[in-house]
Amino acid sequence: MAERVIRTRKGGDDVVVVLSAMSGETDRLIALAHQVTSTPDERELDLLLSTGERVTIALLAMVLQSRGYPARSFTGRQVGIVTDKVHTKARIERVTADRVREALAEGVIPVIAGFQGINENQDVTTLGRGGSDTTAVALAAALSAARCDIYTDVDGVYTTDPNIVPTASRLSKISYEEMLEMASLGAKVLQTRSVEFAMKYRVPVRVLSSFTDAPSGTLVTEEDRDMEQVVVSGVTYDRNQAKITLLGVPDRPGIAARLFSGIAKDNLMVDMIIQNISQEGLTDISFTIPRTDVRKAMALVVALGKDIGAADVQVTDQTAKVSIVGVGMRSHSGVAATMFETLAREGINIMMISTSEIKISCVIEEKYTELAVRALHEAFGLSARA
Amino acid sequence: MAERVIRTRKGGDDVVVVLSAMSGETDRLIALAHQVTSTPDERELDLLLSTGERVTIALLAMVLQSRGYPARSFTGRQVGIVTDKVHTKARIERVTADRVREALAEGVIPVIAGFQGINENQDVTTLGRGGSDTTAVALAAALSAARCDIYTDVDGVYTTDPNIVPTASRLSKISYEEMLEMASLGAKVLQTRSVEFAMKYRVPVRVLSSFTDAPSGTLVTEEDRDMEQVVVSGVTYDRNQAKITLLGVPDRPGIAARLFSGIAKDNLMVDMIIQNISQEGLTDISFTIPRTDVRKAMALVVALGKDIGAADVQVTDQTAKVSIVGVGMRSHSGVAATMFETLAREGINIMMISTSEIKISCVIEEKYTELAVRALHEAFGLSARA
Repeated sequence: MAERVIRTRKGGDDVVVVLSAMSGETDRLIALAHQVTSTPDERELDLLLSTGERVTIALLAMVLQSRGYPARSFTGRQVGIVTDKVHTKARIERVTADRVREALAEGVIPVIAGFQGINENQDVTTLGRGGSDTTAVALAAALSAARCDIYTDVDGVYTTDPNIVPTASRLSKISYEEMLEMASLGAKVLQTRSVEFAMKYRVPVRVLSSFTDAPSGTLVTEEDRDMEQVVVSGVTYDRNQAKITLLGVPDRPGIAARLFSGIAKDNLMVDMIIQNISQEGLTDISFTIPRTDVRKAMALVVALGKDIGAADVQVTDQTAKVSIVGVGMRSHSGVAATMFETLAREGINIMMISTSEIKISCVIEEKYTELAVRALHEAFGLSARA
Repeated sequence: MAERVIRTRKGGDDVVVVLSAMSGETDRLIALAHQVTSTPDERELDLLLSTGERVTIALLAMVLQSRGYPARSFTGRQVGIVTDKVHTKARIERVTADRVREALAEGVIPVIAGFQGINENQDVTTLGRGGSDTTAVALAAALSAARCDIYTDVDGVYTTDPNIVPTASRLSKISYEEMLEMASLGAKVLQTRSVEFAMKYRVPVRVLSSFTDAPSGTLVTEEDRDMEQVVVSGVTYDRNQAKITLLGVPDRPGIAARLFSGIAKDNLMVDMIIQNISQEGLTDISFTIPRTDVRKAMALVVALGKDIGAADVQVTDQTAKVSIVGVGMRSHSGVAATMFETLAREGINIMMISTSEIKISCVIEEKYTELAVRALHEAFGLSARA
């Protein structure tokens, strides 16, 4: 890593480095917490987890110094990464970066702890898995950097998961909007929040592999004419899905609002929502949440269901979501029909559908995930021409 | 540890907990730094080392919470431990402790990171080995605590090192002044700075073993009549000694000042200083420093020696210091004579002598350390009456 920083610096650019923890360190710290209690307090967990990056920034600053490059580490607090108060998945509210600018002005390479910030109580917060991406992009935005390079364990964004479709190909360029849909749908390359920041502040982000020095990767940038030529850029899936249905809900104005504002208060992320056509004044409301939140959600949903007069609550957690994403959908018609036909041809039942301008998602039975992804990848002609 | 905190709390007292890192953690972190560079930057090293306590306070707060006791962790910065700017051995300048008082007022047990503070640049500093003792005593002083209990790996302060004299006995009580002499002479029970704080703010400190629940230990407190009955309370030694001699120094006013202010600028701790009687306008100046600082010191001392016109610089690092300590010396005469006679009887040459009101120290050849300690312990009747 030090070599990479020095090479960039020698290229004549000012460099700001943002680091995550060493591989496996965050998991080790979480395991430590779970050794002492099954329900670690989230404020304490954040303090615990924030140590991982403090170790790596100190070490990299030492290495750079020992190679003759002035360097200085800064924690999230020291560079003024101010977040909201939601521990373990805080959102950055503002970045001052004064000390980073000072260091750059002195010719010093700032080495910054990713993943962490500080809230207005002066308590340490963390930004969730992949939070270092967001730190990097937020700093790039604050500093008006020319580009943000993110070194990760993959060499870019692929048309789909190569574990499922071996002929999946790397995209050399992708729009922020597509990337946002890809990331939130489980592409796992960049933290969603980092792409939101990049889009908002128009920061070009290059995703590169930590393991090679090949300057390939995928550039995440503003939409251009090339991108529109392609109907679908990628097929993504997310197995971390559970579907919750409230049956026999009285269909009165304000019911859905009461339900989902109750759910939002608990910081549960609801994804798709479907409300059936009302029959005899009663309706069914279905929504999906991350499967990992089902236990946390159930007590709340049952209580809210009682509150709004639902007859019953059903949970299905053997579900997955497959999606096709592409800015080209805006200018091409018939994309949804092709998707539904492709799934039907494979005998896959569609449980829920949601669409946006550049994305169509279907919730299906989890066991069909691979089949659906392969069929869609093929149907939209995404395989690499070997 | 959680049990101990809960027991104290159940006893009806408010409790504030100060923690150090897990056993071996600080060494592990130092080793990490030395893996990447032989000369780690001290500012970076402090950030690295400060992670050890952040881990333990988060974990203990979690455990206390899971047992039903509200608890909250605080870092050095969060409790306002403000230090000077000397990295790796910073001195506490003030303690605000506002958040600790708030937590106590809410019935919350504050769990505080020892060993670390923050300087006026908002950079993390550490207080040196045993710095958590100092954090604890400084907080006890700031909070006007009734007592500061320090759990450590020994069950108190002994008349001398039991590894050298198996019949050494534990002191049930010792004065701040004696403890200060014991600690700085190598008793290694409490960090010197913590005892200085305790003495300054009259905080009674109890040294207890982490490994037993026996309420024995040693109470470090104000001098009382009992203590004066005993001539010598303890015999200590320090092998980490090196003697540096500047030969043929022109004996002019201000020479010693120039020498030692030059040395002080480099944060070298000079212990004993002896200047010979001047002969023909020339004198010899000898002083001792920690042996571990010899490499760092030599270049400096040679340069300073040249500067003040010294003919030569000699280093002897095979030296040790043995000392006898006791407030009883103030009211008993002939103590020094007994010490010198005892060493002479064993054939041990005394290279340097220094005395204070309650302490007499002799620098001797290192190979005689154990013999000297045993002889002095016997001569002053310190062995436990078995």
